[in-house]
Amino acid sequence: MQISFSVAELATIVGAQQIKGGTAHTVTGIASLKDAGEGDLSFLGSSKYRSDVQKTRASVVLLPLDFEEMPAEDQVFMLVEQPSAALALVCARIEQALWPKPEPGIHPSAIVSPSAKVEPSASIGPLCVIEDGASIGAGTHLQAQVFVGREAGVAADCWLAAGVHIASSCQIGERVRIHGGVIVGSDGFGYEVVEGKHTKIPQVGIVEVQADVEIGANATLDRARFSKTVIGQGTKIDNQVQIAHNVIVGQHCILCAQVGIAGSTELENYVVLGGQVGVAGHLSIAQGVQVGGKGGIAGSLKEAGVYMGNPAMPYQLERRIIVLQRRLPDLFKKVDGIAKELESLKKASAD
Amino acid sequence: MQISFSVAELATIVGAQQIKGGTAHTVTGIASLKDAGEGDLSFLGSSKYRSDVQKTRASVVLLPLDFEEMPAEDQVFMLVEQPSAALALVCARIEQALWPKPEPGIHPSAIVSPSAKVEPSASIGPLCVIEDGASIGAGTHLQAQVFVGREAGVAADCWLAAGVHIASSCQIGERVRIHGGVIVGSDGFGYEVVEGKHTKIPQVGIVEVQADVEIGANATLDRARFSKTVIGQGTKIDNQVQIAHNVIVGQHCILCAQVGIAGSTELENYVVLGGQVGVAGHLSIAQGVQVGGKGGIAGSLKEAGVYMGNPAMPYQLERRIIVLQRRLPDLFKKVDGIAKELESLKKASAD
Amino acid sequence: MQISFSVAELATIVGAQQIKGGTAHTVTGIASLKDAGEGDLSFLGSSKYRSDVQKTRASVVLLPLDFEEMPAEDQVFMLVEQPSAALALVCARIEQALWPKPEPGIHPSAIVSPSAKVEPSASIGPLCVIEDGASIGAGTHLQAQVFVGREAGVAADCWLAAGVHIASSCQIGERVRIHGGVIVGSDGFGYEVVEGKHTKIPQVGIVEVQADVEIGANATLDRARFSKTVIGQGTKIDNQVQIAHNVIVGQHCILCAQVGIAGSTELENYVVLGGQVGVAGHLSIAQGVQVGGKGGIAGSLKEAGVYMGNPAMPYQLERRIIVLQRRLPDLFKKVDGIAKELESLKKASAD
Repeated sequence: MQISFSVAELATIVGAQQIKGGTAHTVTGIASLKDAGEGDLSFLGSSKYRSDVQKTRASVVLLPLDFEEMPAEDQVFMLVEQPSAALALVCARIEQALWPKPEPGIHPSAIVSPSAKVEPSASIGPLCVIEDGASIGAGTHLQAQVFVGREAGVAADCWLAAGVHIASSCQIGERVRIHGGVIVGSDGFGYEVVEGKHTKIPQVGIVEVQADVEIGANATLDRARFSKTVIGQGTKIDNQVQIAHNVIVGQHCILCAQVGIAGSTELENYVVLGGQVGVAGHLSIAQGVQVGGKGGIAGSLKEAGVYMGNPAMPYQLERRIIVLQRRLPDLFKKVDGIAKELESLKKASAD
Repeated sequence: MQISFSVAELATIVGAQQIKGGTAHTVTGIASLKDAGEGDLSFLGSSKYRSDVQKTRASVVLLPLDFEEMPAEDQVFMLVEQPSAALALVCARIEQALWPKPEPGIHPSAIVSPSAKVEPSASIGPLCVIEDGASIGAGTHLQAQVFVGREAGVAADCWLAAGVHIASSCQIGERVRIHGGVIVGSDGFGYEVVEGKHTKIPQVGIVEVQADVEIGANATLDRARFSKTVIGQGTKIDNQVQIAHNVIVGQHCILCAQVGIAGSTELENYVVLGGQVGVAGHLSIAQGVQVGGKGGIAGSLKEAGVYMGNPAMPYQLERRIIVLQRRLPDLFKKVDGIAKELESLKKASAD
Repeated sequence: MQISFSVAELATIVGAQQIKGGTAHTVTGIASLKDAGEGDLSFLGSSKYRSDVQKTRASVVLLPLDFEEMPAEDQVFMLVEQPSAALALVCARIEQALWPKPEPGIHPSAIVSPSAKVEPSASIGPLCVIEDGASIGAGTHLQAQVFVGREAGVAADCWLAAGVHIASSCQIGERVRIHGGVIVGSDGFGYEVVEGKHTKIPQVGIVEVQADVEIGANATLDRARFSKTVIGQGTKIDNQVQIAHNVIVGQHCILCAQVGIAGSTELENYVVLGGQVGVAGHLSIAQGVQVGGKGGIAGSLKEAGVYMGNPAMPYQLERRIIVLQRRLPDLFKKVDGIAKELESLKKASAD
């Protein structure tokens, strides 16, 4: 990642409202306040790190408008409305340089069925496989070694990283980003016991991934038993998340890494599940529910709010119980003591 | 998924014992009772959803033999022994149409070693790699971009989805289905500390996957340190399951998504592990053990039964403890109250 | 795996200090004490299995120097300093036979950018993709279907299994081993809410994997938001581990299967995380911390030691609490009993 910005360029990109100090350095890197050195751009993303600002060696620091202290020598403080959002603007500029838009067209090593429909402005990278009847929308980029199965559809302006696998008949909406190793449309996990053996229940539904979804590396989304598994518009899915068959995820949800959702569960919009959360099957999770990392959800959650623990409880109750659990050794001792005193009192009163 | 069945065709496929009502619609989709509309087939899979039957707009509904109510206008009720199994018969019919058996032969873009043995009736899809001495059985289909390493064997009538990876020397039995991104035969995780560094212990065993196993997307099965890691006949493994080196999984087990089993643990037949269950290494899990989702198993389980929690306990005990934990705040208050009363009693009796 | 060693060859390989007994068999396999039969080599890896030695049918057994019992007929006991390390020496010999070093050069089916730099002694397997400006070091082997993105670098003497994915600009150090399906350099999971929608924060940093690291199958390592995500020298990562953006993992750490570490957390050297452990974001974990399987870490751990549970506690406290939890039903009964007795005492004293 080779970058180079003058202070003036940076000020323009981030829309600086005030600039304090000056530096002889060009900005050639980005680093946290603690790690930054000469030539680095840094930023105060959370007031938690406020004390690091005085110690940072960054050449340019993005700070909130109410930051009153002055920069060190050879250092620039840029005051902006939201330092974190300002940094994102710089990163977006870098991103364009790092990952230039690929040329449209189909790489000669890709294997594309004659009955597949690839829009001319799409870019199909090396060693991709596109099967019969599949369709790839305008401006969509398959990086390399991507598999798109029979009759599957990837809409316009998507980006599919190397090795992504879209199984037959599944449908991907516009502007969807899918990272490496993601499997969309593997069979749901359904069997019936027949004479002591698990007999497969055919899984003939699809996965529908709506527009503006992002899916992290090595996540897996199973096709429905029938009908469809759905990921709602604008939902973001982190790495190694598992979505079982017939799950319905609402719009603008956040599913952190290694979450697992069992079959036929429905999440309304704006649900947030922390890392490694597990949700049992056939449940309903209401809009605005947030579950802390490692939480286990065994029953439907019908009210918005923050839940934690396994089985998940309202946050306050769970915190309370955790504190009391640590006091259990004391409680057991105390009760033993009370029992003894009671015994002597009884004796005394019997005497 | 384009389907089209007349009522008469459906009745034949599912073996309907009684048909009530009539409809002008052809069945062109499958949906749950709640979601179904005109032209949809639906079914009552669990008595839990019984009240949805009266409200469903499905054109045809599969119902159990003892279902006595009558269909709405333009609606058919088909009574069958097991609605869920009947639906599976319909889905199996659809499956054949969706995924026709591929032509035998080797796609010209596949890279197959001259010393590999591929049966003529096998179908090797585009961009597969089959290394020296590997063998592919009759009727087996490698979808695309599959890797089969040196001396590995895939027996007859298997189906390996795009991107599956069978490492060298591993053996896959007959009629095994493996979904996208599965890695069979990665190295076991074994090191010895030598002068403060983790030094690799060579992992030279194999993985043996027996007949009729199914393995879900992105699951990982490590090769043994020596000898073999075994998945017993008829066992079904869900997505993102992790099987460490030298694990022995018995026959007809069910391992739900994101389960992890540490090294050298042995599962007898018919063990069921819920989603995200973790099992420590070097344990024995008896036939008929069932562990609820997110359970943690730190010791051997020698008796069949249902276990839950972390560390896993018998189901009844775990439920009891969960209820009591939520009453901990009350208990602490109560004990404080008792202590105070006791104190005043003591004072009173001392007076 | 076909192996064949005479007793004399084995004695040389393992450096036997004493040999007791004799056998007519050549060693053609390796198995645990319990599973071994004629022609097998076995070993006593842990004193836990000591009683299995008398019952084993292995032809040759590796035993510690202080093992005094005598072998059965047609059986050899070899006394060595560390039986487990001795076995590793045998396995290393087998490994060389199993996986001969591949020929240097680029397979004709690989797609290598003219601007990529591949050392002549590197071996690039079939259907690999190496993009513009990427570099592959001397003696490094890409097995097959590996993807190395723009400007990414893989140093000397690495081994990347089939299907590994190194995203653009990421850097892999010397002697790194990466198993199938690993994704290095997927985007970090970062969004800001703008008008009710999750808007992507560009992730323009890289992943730096230092020398002598091993990464297990289907693990995922996210690129930094800016700067870099780091895996320190000599650290070993098991299958399906998830490393979020800007995480810093120290040297010689052990991360067992299915561990997840959230963004910006730092692990010092020699940290050990058991299977399925989850670590929240923005924490510091001190050198020498060990967390038992399924542990949940919600706060920084500043002292070395063994931690367990969720939220993780010092080992002794956690064990204690687990025992007391199981006695909760008794405690509730006892307190109820005390309350009643107290009530009668009060009545009695009031009379």
